[in-house]
Amino acid sequence: MDDSILHNFRVVLVGTLYSGNIGSTCRAMANMGLRDLALVAPHICDDGTDAERLAVHATDILQNKRVFDTLEDAVADCSCVVGTTARMGLYRAHVQEPKVIMPELLKLAANGKVALVFGREDKGLSNDEILQCNRLIRIPVHPDYKSINLSQAVLICCYELYCATGSYEPPVEKSLPATAEKKHRMMQIWREMLLRVGFMKEDKADHMMQGIQRIFSRGVQSDDDVAILMGVARQTEWYHGQHTKQ
Amino acid sequence: MDDSILHNFRVVLVGTLYSGNIGSTCRAMANMGLRDLALVAPHICDDGTDAERLAVHATDILQNKRVFDTLEDAVADCSCVVGTTARMGLYRAHVQEPKVIMPELLKLAANGKVALVFGREDKGLSNDEILQCNRLIRIPVHPDYKSINLSQAVLICCYELYCATGSYEPPVEKSLPATAEKKHRMMQIWREMLLRVGFMKEDKADHMMQGIQRIFSRGVQSDDDVAILMGVARQTEWYHGQHTKQ
Repeated sequence: MDDSILHNFRVVLVGTLYSGNIGSTCRAMANMGLRDLALVAPHICDDGTDAERLAVHATDILQNKRVFDTLEDAVADCSCVVGTTARMGLYRAHVQEPKVIMPELLKLAANGKVALVFGREDKGLSNDEILQCNRLIRIPVHPDYKSINLSQAVLICCYELYCATGSYEPPVEKSLPATAEKKHRMMQIWREMLLRVGFMKEDKADHMMQGIQRIFSRGVQSDDDVAILMGVARQTEWYHGQHTKQ
Repeated sequence: MDDSILHNFRVVLVGTLYSGNIGSTCRAMANMGLRDLALVAPHICDDGTDAERLAVHATDILQNKRVFDTLEDAVADCSCVVGTTARMGLYRAHVQEPKVIMPELLKLAANGKVALVFGREDKGLSNDEILQCNRLIRIPVHPDYKSINLSQAVLICCYELYCATGSYEPPVEKSLPATAEKKHRMMQIWREMLLRVGFMKEDKADHMMQGIQRIFSRGVQSDDDVAILMGVARQTEWYHGQHTKQ
């Protein structure tokens, strides 16, 4: 999936207390390809300087953020409003995990804006605010310490969303997988070398080579790997030839 | 899987510059069930107070952290050392994604300690340090802004590890799924009510009820849902009976 669909997602922070969390949220959003940030009635209790400091290279998201008086205003144009909650309660039992819900939200985002709504650092979203959400997310956390930092919660949701697009391309090994023929040739060269340097005698060679084979079969995957180990064996034989009295 | 296996994982921060990242790392570890923190030659450039402030209720992890001079010392007792890297390079191409590697690391942790190693905020891990790692992780990030905050990187790794244990139990709906019989009865009551209040006439009722059915079939899942909607229809009929001249 093309990751431009992520532009149809809005992160909405409600009643945020610490400017650092707003800055860290901007960076987390940029890391995962989201751009649209809305604040609802922020209630910053520090001097506000942490926002820009922690946004680092995502200050454009910070500068382009929009501020609303109410959650209703912030999500007015969204066709799906998704709340996040750590608390349990009568109307919070239908929560879903990020890994489960994000692929569904990506489909919905094809036809309209989707808001991901995060509550206050100390109290989360109120029941009134939860009622404005069509869907609810709960992030899996260990029962010993369930309270997750606001920007960390934003990150996990955005990360699962980005992963769900499938647009991340892991780096590929440039070296091709080694063929059986090459690996077999490598083992022959090692066998000759190990016999030459006296690591094993001919009558034990089959047995010893099984141990070497076990190690190499786990570790050797590519043409480059084969080339390195062949080089070791050949150089060792050469050195041996140079320094051994005939 | 029992999540006590997570105690066999150590988070190792190498050459950390900001105390806030150490504090946030402690909280992220506690959120995901990890306890063992090691610092290698920290190089804190602030007054250090952010560590405790951002650890919040995970100060025990901060207090029990161990400090080492070298990475070698910090991972000496670990049977698997896993580095994290954002950079590419000759010996970094075999990186794996957290979602892929964590289930494998959980298996390894059954027989020995596993270290998750995170580099400096500005430069990551050096090539020498990468050489000490058996495995490498790269976190999927958007190509527009690849540099992820240190404690955010720790969080994603610990989160995927915790998810991989499968020990998180999502909340269950206490109300049972509604049976077809109950849903059918509910639709009958709604049909009667909608005819009574004049929402539709008998000759259009089958058609209109298909629209209602479509909505309700998406939304009604549990016994509680059926009970609520039956209540709405019955109350409406009752009210209608009370206020309509016979």
